[in-house]
Amino acid sequence: MPARLLEGHPVAEEILRDVREQIRTSATQTPLTVAVLLGDDAAARSYARAIRKTMAPLGIEVRTVPLDDSMHEERFREIVTQLNRQADITGILALQPLPPGLPRSLPALSIAPEKDVDGITPVNAGRLLLGLPAIAPSTPAGAMELLRYYGIPVSGRRAVIVGRSPVVGRPLVSLLLAADATVTVCHRKTSDLADVTRTAELLFVAAGSPALIKPDMVRPGTVVIDFGVNAVGEHLVGDVDPAVAEVASAITPVPGGTGPVTNAILARNLLTLAKLQRS
Amino acid sequence: MPARLLEGHPVAEEILRDVREQIRTSATQTPLTVAVLLGDDAAARSYARAIRKTMAPLGIEVRTVPLDDSMHEERFREIVTQLNRQADITGILALQPLPPGLPRSLPALSIAPEKDVDGITPVNAGRLLLGLPAIAPSTPAGAMELLRYYGIPVSGRRAVIVGRSPVVGRPLVSLLLAADATVTVCHRKTSDLADVTRTAELLFVAAGSPALIKPDMVRPGTVVIDFGVNAVGEHLVGDVDPAVAEVASAITPVPGGTGPVTNAILARNLLTLAKLQRS
Repeated sequence: MPARLLEGHPVAEEILRDVREQIRTSATQTPLTVAVLLGDDAAARSYARAIRKTMAPLGIEVRTVPLDDSMHEERFREIVTQLNRQADITGILALQPLPPGLPRSLPALSIAPEKDVDGITPVNAGRLLLGLPAIAPSTPAGAMELLRYYGIPVSGRRAVIVGRSPVVGRPLVSLLLAADATVTVCHRKTSDLADVTRTAELLFVAAGSPALIKPDMVRPGTVVIDFGVNAVGEHLVGDVDPAVAEVASAITPVPGGTGPVTNAILARNLLTLAKLQRS
Repeated sequence: MPARLLEGHPVAEEILRDVREQIRTSATQTPLTVAVLLGDDAAARSYARAIRKTMAPLGIEVRTVPLDDSMHEERFREIVTQLNRQADITGILALQPLPPGLPRSLPALSIAPEKDVDGITPVNAGRLLLGLPAIAPSTPAGAMELLRYYGIPVSGRRAVIVGRSPVVGRPLVSLLLAADATVTVCHRKTSDLADVTRTAELLFVAAGSPALIKPDMVRPGTVVIDFGVNAVGEHLVGDVDPAVAEVASAITPVPGGTGPVTNAILARNLLTLAKLQRS
């Protein structure tokens, strides 16, 4: 029996309906604005368009800040410092990849925590890990919303994460621990990946490796959340082989699974930042 | 064959020798001072004495700040804010338990990150999780030093942590991921604890539950690190049943295992803070 498809769109719509309602009832407040820092990269541009498409119907302004390829670290810091100070900017998002030569961690170390719409700063990562109120990174937070929406229990269950990136795998540890899962993190140094993935009741894959997870690596009945977005020829494929759908009890499609929820969470995070800034 | 005993004292001595040497060669600098906030609790007082015993031979001043039982949150914050500002204070440590009524997270939310000698603040926890330079909490950092000292490899191995406290289990996830272990975290909501602990090649136990881990929960040859310090009658017992030593390949004694290393790491962290403050 093929797996139930965990479509992201209805989850995103539910979240966005709530965000729209909250924005509407606080209509006298200043409008929300997100600054999107964007290098010369096709994937980043496509992601920026998707963000605009999510934000526009909510009346959220998306202000694109282009980063040119010759940009130095100092200039990047100046731009972010300026945005940190600007009262009309609610949140700041720096899309990866950054211009060549800029360290990947630069946004996490320059964006102010109170404008950190994607929860990438050490303060937010630490608050999340320690179980304190925090802005959670949109991609892993979206996965938790998918599970909630489809009524999939997490507490007490075995969760396995493949991939330990700062934006997905690591913050997902914090979110899953907060939800009382037993959590395992695997990565490229894991010597017996299939042995570990087969222990999962909930399997989260964010490895950036097309079709890495094969059917024999998944225990029948497992719920599979695929964060992978890999361009293979003209197609987008996930980190999970589509044949896994014959083994799993439920699986996210690629595209149309975790992606749409990510953008909805960004909008919700922006609203949370606006409330914090007003209080 | 009984397990090799992983004694903490030689590890602590090695670390302290290095700290002493570094302090000596920077002799013209101002002396190091750690402020220890201390409520009316026997275990905390005993811990404060151990800290003083470690720090005194290094010429580090330990300034005890008593917290009375009727203290309010506001007063605690005032004291810490004052210490954050004092140039002659290198680091601040607040011993648990705090006076009744004070939230457990209060030190993490009031100590300045640049004086956070035990790596409890969100900024340090987040930096550690994200793989950025950070002050690591002394107890889990001490465990990593124990493994290093005794030549026990970590990379690519299955590590299981029992307990998810903000001071041991959670930061240990960050440290073990940084060392390329495959990491699993269990806790009181884990439904099949023995199933999980039996997958460990490296087993870390910080559950605060006397003799929780029995021999049948440990695979032969496992390395066991016991953070437990439980007073049972007149004895101190760990979270691991002593009979586990018949199954494990190596195990930390209680007392005399992780404890001594913890204090040495505190001294090393204090030195790191002093360097950061000077630069």
